[in-house]
Amino acid sequence: MSLFAPTFNTLRDLYLNELRDLYSAETQLIDALPEMAEAATSPELKAAFNSHLQETRLHAQRLEQIFQALGEDPSGETCQAMKGLIKEGGDYVKAGGDDSVRDAGLIGAAQRVEHYEMAGYGTARALAMRLSETAAAKILQTTLNEEGAADKKLTAIAEGQVNTSASVS
Amino acid sequence: MSLFAPTFNTLRDLYLNELRDLYSAETQLIDALPEMAEAATSPELKAAFNSHLQETRLHAQRLEQIFQALGEDPSGETCQAMKGLIKEGGDYVKAGGDDSVRDAGLIGAAQRVEHYEMAGYGTARALAMRLSETAAAKILQTTLNEEGAADKKLTAIAEGQVNTSASVS
Repeated sequence: MSLFAPTFNTLRDLYLNELRDLYSAETQLIDALPEMAEAATSPELKAAFNSHLQETRLHAQRLEQIFQALGEDPSGETCQAMKGLIKEGGDYVKAGGDDSVRDAGLIGAAQRVEHYEMAGYGTARALAMRLSETAAAKILQTTLNEEGAADKKLTAIAEGQVNTSASVS
Repeated sequence: MSLFAPTFNTLRDLYLNELRDLYSAETQLIDALPEMAEAATSPELKAAFNSHLQETRLHAQRLEQIFQALGEDPSGETCQAMKGLIKEGGDYVKAGGDDSVRDAGLIGAAQRVEHYEMAGYGTARALAMRLSETAAAKILQTTLNEEGAADKKLTAIAEGQVNTSASVS
C-alpha cells in the first residue's frame, strides 16, 4: 500500500487495491525464493522452494491476466507485509548454526508467506464474487488452492524430515 | 527478528525465536486493534475487533507464561512482518471513501494478521511437540484455535453484512 491515505469509494476500488497488493507480494516472492532455495540444505526443501518459484511466476501471470481483463495496471502498490515477511525469511537465509535447524526456520518463514497469501487471495476471491467477476474468482480460487497445497507440503517436509534430523537442544 | 544474522544451533534456539516473534506480533496487535475498532463503522465489526483485543491480551499472557516456565525473557525480537501487516491495516484506518468499503478493507487486513498468527502458532506448536514441551504445545494449540475462530468470524461479518452493504462500483 502507498504512503498516503487512499480513498475507497467502491468495492471495485478495494478489489483493485487487494489485487495490486497480491501482485506486489508475488513479485517480491519471485525475487526471494531463489535465495531461500539456495540456503536450504534438505534436498526436498530445496526442490519445494524451486517448484514453488515456478508456481509463483504463474500466480503473478494470472494476476496480470485479471488486470488485463479489467483494463487496469497491476503495479503501483508495494505490499508492506510481504516486505516484512521476506525480511524474516532473509534472517534464516543468513543464519548460522545447525543446517537442519535453519531449514526448519526457513519452512516456518515460508509458511507465514503462504498463509499471508491465502488470506489475501481469500479476500480477493470474495470481492470478485461480490462484483460478479466470475472468471477472475475462479482463477483466484485456483491460486488459493495451490498456496494451500504448498503450505501442506512444507508441513510434511518439516514433520517428515527436517524437524527429526535437527539437534533438539 | 533482529538486524543481525542470528545463530540457531538447536531447535530450542529456533523455538525461542519463534515464540519471541509471536510475542512481538501480539504486543504490536494490542496497540493496533483499538484504532481498527475505532475506525470500523459496522457495530458487529467494532465488537469483533474489541473482543479480539481481549483475546490478544490473553494470547500475550499465555506466551509470558510459556517463557516463565522456560526461564527465558519474552522480549528482544521485533516481528517485521507484523509491522508491515499493521501498516497495511493503518492505511484502511485512515482511508477515505465509503464506510462499508473501508470496513471490508479492515476485515481483509485483519484476516491477513490472523493467518500470519496461525502460521506462527502452527510452527511454534510443532516445535514444542518435537521438544516434548507438552504443556506449552497445548497452550499454543488453544491460541491457534482462537485465531482460527477469529478469522472465521471476520469472514462471516464480511459475507453477511459488510460486503453486501458496500457500494459495488
